[in-house]
Amino acid sequence: MRPAVEKRLNPNVSVDCVVFGFDGEKLKVLLIDRDGIDEQSAEEKVYVLPGNLILNDENLDEAAQRVLNELSGLHNIYLEQFGSFGDPDRLTKEKDHAWLKSIRAEPEARVITVAYYSLIRADAYSLHASGFAKKAFWHDLDNLPELGFDHRDILNSAWKELQFKSKYQPIGFELLPEKFTLGQLQKLYEAILQTELDKRNFRRKIMKMSFLVQLKEKQIGVPHKPARYFTFDKDRYQAYKSQDFYFTL
Amino acid sequence: MRPAVEKRLNPNVSVDCVVFGFDGEKLKVLLIDRDGIDEQSAEEKVYVLPGNLILNDENLDEAAQRVLNELSGLHNIYLEQFGSFGDPDRLTKEKDHAWLKSIRAEPEARVITVAYYSLIRADAYSLHASGFAKKAFWHDLDNLPELGFDHRDILNSAWKELQFKSKYQPIGFELLPEKFTLGQLQKLYEAILQTELDKRNFRRKIMKMSFLVQLKEKQIGVPHKPARYFTFDKDRYQAYKSQDFYFTL
Repeated sequence: MRPAVEKRLNPNVSVDCVVFGFDGEKLKVLLIDRDGIDEQSAEEKVYVLPGNLILNDENLDEAAQRVLNELSGLHNIYLEQFGSFGDPDRLTKEKDHAWLKSIRAEPEARVITVAYYSLIRADAYSLHASGFAKKAFWHDLDNLPELGFDHRDILNSAWKELQFKSKYQPIGFELLPEKFTLGQLQKLYEAILQTELDKRNFRRKIMKMSFLVQLKEKQIGVPHKPARYFTFDKDRYQAYKSQDFYFTL
Repeated sequence: MRPAVEKRLNPNVSVDCVVFGFDGEKLKVLLIDRDGIDEQSAEEKVYVLPGNLILNDENLDEAAQRVLNELSGLHNIYLEQFGSFGDPDRLTKEKDHAWLKSIRAEPEARVITVAYYSLIRADAYSLHASGFAKKAFWHDLDNLPELGFDHRDILNSAWKELQFKSKYQPIGFELLPEKFTLGQLQKLYEAILQTELDKRNFRRKIMKMSFLVQLKEKQIGVPHKPARYFTFDKDRYQAYKSQDFYFTL
């Protein structure tokens, strides 16, 4: 790292990004391998979320975009700030200490991190690790490895936020194809909520969505009874959002 | 400020608190007067939200509680983190510069602030200014004076968050008396949404709340037709919250 850049880094504030990726079946999260030593046993590995110190002349949103791009190649995806994490003991793992010493001018400085999350199609983007990232990859949300710093807490918090949002706001506009079956929509909800949903109950609730539009078209060439396609109506969605409802059910 | 304390302050990270107070009629916000010079004309006055740098050995939630308590006397009220603000140009006003120079070891340091908000009964707490606060007071949300730093943005953002939340979650459990009329409930919503609501439409929606319970009791000794009292059922509210609804209307 050039001294000019090092000097512009704020020693006390970082950003971290929790990028969830849906591949049509499962929910994954974007992780970074800092050392790239593949010979290490799985137990020794400590992966991290993409994150780094902010520069003193950029705002927080810009920092999140820059850091995510530097480490994973992802460019200009929608990132939403969801919380800041600043426990004085965020730094407990020996491996994190050693890594900070190798890369930071003030490795002992207390760092508060501002966290962002995103939900994208995992298969619509290609990943390119650079900077201190030796590898950027998608990992299933079940069976997660150990994560550095307090990144497990940050990830859990982002996931909770996503689950909360999915109760009140439609998700899936960008994650499903233009036309989709209710089975595909259910898979998305099951992946986010990490639970199996009752098919009949799910359909009953989802059909109340005023912006869900049933198409005449059905699946072709499937080995089961062809399912009907649906689509989202963006105008109706805007009208839905602007209502002054009060948590009515 | 003693040097020991100054040394423990993190120069780059602060907390700010947006405390909304409802007095039964209007929504107010808690402001701080840093200089206490009452002779100044209203145009010269720049008030701020209660906020200050964090200590290096406390977490963010602790910092918010401590700072709010130091400046206003409010103790252990529920504070929710809702966003962090870190534009490099948060500091543009001459009065803020001068004030920082008078109080901070590193007045030019870039400060990222983690913001919290709260909604309380304005008349249930007494305010006691201390620290650099010369006065802590409630101000109406309409007709706000100039605020220091980017505190107007922070306040607006907290208010938007409160309005958003009020669409999906009941508010008022702590803000209304144990038993209340629908007129009182409507006043609370009108204060938060800062708009007049149609009485019939409001009642139609609000009566769908499964945790709103109509009591047999009516108002006594009022100069108009006595209104019926209502109360909130906390068990039903918990049951409501645990449902797996998907933004159905």
